[in-house]
Amino acid sequence: MSAKRTALVISAHAADFVWRCGGAIALHQEQGVDVTVVCLSFGERGESAKLWKQPGMTLERVKAARRAEAEKAAAALGVHDLITFDMGDYPLEFTRAWKDRLVDVMRAVQPDFMLSHSSFDPYNTDHMLTTQVVLECRSTAQAWGHNPGQKVLGAPQLYLFEPHQTEQMGWKPDTFLDITPVWEKKWAAIQCMEGQEHLWHFYRNVAENRANHFTRNSGGQSGGRACKYAEGFQSIFPRTVDSL
Amino acid sequence: MSAKRTALVISAHAADFVWRCGGAIALHQEQGVDVTVVCLSFGERGESAKLWKQPGMTLERVKAARRAEAEKAAAALGVHDLITFDMGDYPLEFTRAWKDRLVDVMRAVQPDFMLSHSSFDPYNTDHMLTTQVVLECRSTAQAWGHNPGQKVLGAPQLYLFEPHQTEQMGWKPDTFLDITPVWEKKWAAIQCMEGQEHLWHFYRNVAENRANHFTRNSGGQSGGRACKYAEGFQSIFPRTVDSL
Amino acid sequence: MSAKRTALVISAHAADFVWRCGGAIALHQEQGVDVTVVCLSFGERGESAKLWKQPGMTLERVKAARRAEAEKAAAALGVHDLITFDMGDYPLEFTRAWKDRLVDVMRAVQPDFMLSHSSFDPYNTDHMLTTQVVLECRSTAQAWGHNPGQKVLGAPQLYLFEPHQTEQMGWKPDTFLDITPVWEKKWAAIQCMEGQEHLWHFYRNVAENRANHFTRNSGGQSGGRACKYAEGFQSIFPRTVDSL
Amino acid sequence: MSAKRTALVISAHAADFVWRCGGAIALHQEQGVDVTVVCLSFGERGESAKLWKQPGMTLERVKAARRAEAEKAAAALGVHDLITFDMGDYPLEFTRAWKDRLVDVMRAVQPDFMLSHSSFDPYNTDHMLTTQVVLECRSTAQAWGHNPGQKVLGAPQLYLFEPHQTEQMGWKPDTFLDITPVWEKKWAAIQCMEGQEHLWHFYRNVAENRANHFTRNSGGQSGGRACKYAEGFQSIFPRTVDSL
Amino acid sequence: MSAKRTALVISAHAADFVWRCGGAIALHQEQGVDVTVVCLSFGERGESAKLWKQPGMTLERVKAARRAEAEKAAAALGVHDLITFDMGDYPLEFTRAWKDRLVDVMRAVQPDFMLSHSSFDPYNTDHMLTTQVVLECRSTAQAWGHNPGQKVLGAPQLYLFEPHQTEQMGWKPDTFLDITPVWEKKWAAIQCMEGQEHLWHFYRNVAENRANHFTRNSGGQSGGRACKYAEGFQSIFPRTVDSL
Amino acid sequence: MSAKRTALVISAHAADFVWRCGGAIALHQEQGVDVTVVCLSFGERGESAKLWKQPGMTLERVKAARRAEAEKAAAALGVHDLITFDMGDYPLEFTRAWKDRLVDVMRAVQPDFMLSHSSFDPYNTDHMLTTQVVLECRSTAQAWGHNPGQKVLGAPQLYLFEPHQTEQMGWKPDTFLDITPVWEKKWAAIQCMEGQEHLWHFYRNVAENRANHFTRNSGGQSGGRACKYAEGFQSIFPRTVDSL
Repeated sequence: MSAKRTALVISAHAADFVWRCGGAIALHQEQGVDVTVVCLSFGERGESAKLWKQPGMTLERVKAARRAEAEKAAAALGVHDLITFDMGDYPLEFTRAWKDRLVDVMRAVQPDFMLSHSSFDPYNTDHMLTTQVVLECRSTAQAWGHNPGQKVLGAPQLYLFEPHQTEQMGWKPDTFLDITPVWEKKWAAIQCMEGQEHLWHFYRNVAENRANHFTRNSGGQSGGRACKYAEGFQSIFPRTVDSL
Repeated sequence: MSAKRTALVISAHAADFVWRCGGAIALHQEQGVDVTVVCLSFGERGESAKLWKQPGMTLERVKAARRAEAEKAAAALGVHDLITFDMGDYPLEFTRAWKDRLVDVMRAVQPDFMLSHSSFDPYNTDHMLTTQVVLECRSTAQAWGHNPGQKVLGAPQLYLFEPHQTEQMGWKPDTFLDITPVWEKKWAAIQCMEGQEHLWHFYRNVAENRANHFTRNSGGQSGGRACKYAEGFQSIFPRTVDSL
Repeated sequence: MSAKRTALVISAHAADFVWRCGGAIALHQEQGVDVTVVCLSFGERGESAKLWKQPGMTLERVKAARRAEAEKAAAALGVHDLITFDMGDYPLEFTRAWKDRLVDVMRAVQPDFMLSHSSFDPYNTDHMLTTQVVLECRSTAQAWGHNPGQKVLGAPQLYLFEPHQTEQMGWKPDTFLDITPVWEKKWAAIQCMEGQEHLWHFYRNVAENRANHFTRNSGGQSGGRACKYAEGFQSIFPRTVDSL
Repeated sequence: MSAKRTALVISAHAADFVWRCGGAIALHQEQGVDVTVVCLSFGERGESAKLWKQPGMTLERVKAARRAEAEKAAAALGVHDLITFDMGDYPLEFTRAWKDRLVDVMRAVQPDFMLSHSSFDPYNTDHMLTTQVVLECRSTAQAWGHNPGQKVLGAPQLYLFEPHQTEQMGWKPDTFLDITPVWEKKWAAIQCMEGQEHLWHFYRNVAENRANHFTRNSGGQSGGRACKYAEGFQSIFPRTVDSL
Repeated sequence: MSAKRTALVISAHAADFVWRCGGAIALHQEQGVDVTVVCLSFGERGESAKLWKQPGMTLERVKAARRAEAEKAAAALGVHDLITFDMGDYPLEFTRAWKDRLVDVMRAVQPDFMLSHSSFDPYNTDHMLTTQVVLECRSTAQAWGHNPGQKVLGAPQLYLFEPHQTEQMGWKPDTFLDITPVWEKKWAAIQCMEGQEHLWHFYRNVAENRANHFTRNSGGQSGGRACKYAEGFQSIFPRTVDSL
Repeated sequence: MSAKRTALVISAHAADFVWRCGGAIALHQEQGVDVTVVCLSFGERGESAKLWKQPGMTLERVKAARRAEAEKAAAALGVHDLITFDMGDYPLEFTRAWKDRLVDVMRAVQPDFMLSHSSFDPYNTDHMLTTQVVLECRSTAQAWGHNPGQKVLGAPQLYLFEPHQTEQMGWKPDTFLDITPVWEKKWAAIQCMEGQEHLWHFYRNVAENRANHFTRNSGGQSGGRACKYAEGFQSIFPRTVDSL
């Protein structure tokens, strides 16, 4: 904790880190926390309908387009390091090698906290599989006998960021983060996602309504703090504190 | 938030505040937080078996004994204000008047956070009823039209402290508090509970094992913080933060 | 445990003890367990549609008819003691006096186990309220300071018997009881319920299908015990055993 | 079912029926369904902070203002009948008389379906109490022996409309209703709520985002139906159908 | 939606589609919906105890017998297309190739709705794995970049049909379907399952008791519709409607 | 059931069977039940931090040390048969061959009951995977067509033993076993685990506190049975009984 703080985002598809925690990324970067983003895939098969509707489209062209968008968005947010696994999507298929690579990233980054998908998602099984694998890799990264000599991972919190239909995914936020100071960055990053323009307004609404929840939970009509944009997160592990 | 911080504990019976959050009370008092404790009853009927097994015992003598214990324990913990409602136990029966009195206390104390029982308890229905009423009174205390002119309550967190059989009560801690610095005070307070000596050792074990959980969740074998005694709490409401 | 074993059934309406645990009653009576049944009401308003559809029907005539049915069914099952509170139904309204009377019964009977309704029932709020009150009264009956001098209640298991639509009530059986030896008694008791003939066949089917579950859970195709009629129960409290 | 269809909304406070199901009301009225709205209170104490912040405000003036808003909103939505119980809020206190009156309304309206609050709401205990009482009154209204001679209630579905913080209330929608055709009416009704202007934009966002969910669930990128505004509902009871 | 309606059943073992949704199949076929059934296996290893108890039995003979039964039952129900994957059972093992084949079927059939197993089943892990894979394949079938050129799948509802022990599987029906008009067909199909005669009566009872639930939920004593046989289903996704 | 009773423990890592069910093992051995323990791995990579912190440590040396501890502990408990799969840990990877071997053990042992890990464990995915595989192998072992000729498995109960942080794992005990008579054996076995000395005291506290729960659930202040050490278990399947 004495050293530089770091964080690690594991995003199943290229755009997830933008919609779901772009504010958290930009905010922590401004606070001096280095945020590494792993994109397991570009969402090239499952989240690029607009591109595929164009005649003569190919997988490589889709991937190139989505990669460019992701890089542009990452730049807008100030991401410290964007790592693209390019492991294919719909479905993600985790071999031992992909898992080991994720363990290596966890150990190299030594994050103070991590962010990934909801634990359940009947619409998008890539999402829930990602979180399951993140937990498995967290266990492995904590194992002293895995690649002895590497620095072993501590016990970083895993925050689950907001899915598309929260209630269907059984996702319940316990933490609201005020992202008002960095909203312009998140909005710029969102607009990099040219293939999914139908979601821009949706996630703007989400940010505004989570801000309403922020105000309500910080005091409401009696001292609640003004907030214009917020993001919500669900914690997997208990916090350890010195004061309530 | 600029002014002195305060906290409010609502304890169904006289001893609950000692077993379940004595450490939190002592710790926050040392940190300059004024902690008010409301004891709704003395536990005179339902949690004083040892006294009742004595021949010729009367309700008044039991209450006097339990009150004395509670006062002694409160002193040991440095409780700012101990308020005894003396509304009878097993079962607690909340009239409009008792609820209004609790609303008055909430508004007078203006707590930054509150502590009370688990939401479910098939062994002890007083406990779950208390939490249900605390939520109702929190709503009322936030209502601008209730006793206009009084200072309206903000949105204090409600932490549920640890029940006797956590899994049967559906209680899941999301926060572990290190109470090592004040353990001696909690242990002294526990020993004030002469009528329930069979629980002293039990709650010492609880504190030790929660400390193990504290260490595990703060880093475990790789940087986990040493901790000898801890308490666990479950939050009802989301947190509002500026950093994860 | 050295003395005679006893059991206590708390039935919201007159017929519930028949459909839901008639087999358990008859079986335990044959095993020498004295089973007391408390009928809080006769189901006179809410479960007597057939009678009310007759012209000129009155509340007293409905109650008399339902009482006669309940007594006849109790005799068929060999019930040790049938206690009718006659507190009115739809809705049941529990005053302090009704609760105290139930506590008195619990203490007088000193049951080794109790049976009552599911914890949740959106179709029939009398049912879920009954279980809530049974838990409250169990707490009170265990309180040494309640009516000092009475024998205090131990910690009898509370089994929740089968509701009408199990999945909607969130009821999950953990215990299947083979009632084949007493099926004829239960079937006779069921046929006493002349006002609810549409349910006879339904509960016969239930008993047959629970027997199928009994066989499956005792070994299935490889050693499962033959069973023709069974009842299912959900336990509220953990068991304490000397062998798994 | 041959006759005119009807629906019944039970709203704890004056504005709830607007935010949470104003679209459903207006839409069904246009479809020839008579929608009756019961406002149990005006939200005069707990949901009128803006008014109470004015100097010299009185309960009667608040109630008059909120009543006027509710009537204006009801008119905008085309509500068939607006019934104000005026039973006081924060907390609602249901006596036998209030419950009987609600039963009378249910029987008089004979609704094909009903709408009310989420089953759980730690922020606002009036909301969850209302749903609990609605279920109790539905049971009573179905009881042939309650006020014999009145037409007995059938088995109308109970839809739970959207609360303020869905995930905290454990509310999960299973039905999305396209309210695009009546959005202007709902928006007009929302603007009648002068005392809660901070919520107008919030509920507009909700309607837009539920429309996105509507499109996703009706086919998404492959045939999903365009929808601009929608409302979500959770069903308590199973549906009975002749085709899936 | 203008064209012919279609449905797709995914059945882990040969007999599942008969017990669990034979009525839905026959009914929809009569309504002009083409129902395709995929049997992943014949249940040759895990659900053919009666055959295996015969001396000298071989896997091929068991499979031939179960295949013949499945074909006969499908004919009795009027199944549009019976597809047998023959991928082996206990346990099912889904390679990428099996999943791709299932995706191909989904895209070829373009079902308006699908039916499969409960989400959880500790007795039979093939069942819960099937549903998990159905959700994954539904995601893949919706991906525009998977086999570009094929018609992409929309968003068909997934109904979970009734498992053997509903409460242990956490299965909760939200839809009851009246299958009275086609009961004779279902009963004929059931009797094709010669190897599992012990289940015939069980599922007849299930159909009768679900009919009782149908009547109760459509009005009960006050207008409930008569129904002699029914099936229950749990929906995974929300419905999108124009009227409640 | 006429023959010798047997039990089977499936332990992900070498020490799990000691902490979590060492008392149950020793107690049943004393009661004449042969208990076989399968250790899937030695916990060599993930649960041997103390050893790995020594310079120059190798995987083989760690495994040898952990094997020696496990054998010594098994001897202390009187384990009938200790089978070490040595399949590697963190993560466990179950091929078809490992699963078939576990099925073979289940059929060879023909256990009256089995014990394994909690269904969920975000800290240690090996644990939850083990239970998932145990259920799958139980299904396979019950399949008459799997290795015809072998004796088919019946329907043994699966008890989930106590994990490290019960509430985080969603583990809820329904059975408390009094292990006082064999505590000295369990304590001796615990002390064999030299690499995890920091857990000795933790699990002693657990045993003492579970004993408190045993006393509470067997009668508490009114007849509860004295008990000094206990273990808790959660059952997966319903019990089949002849008496409640």
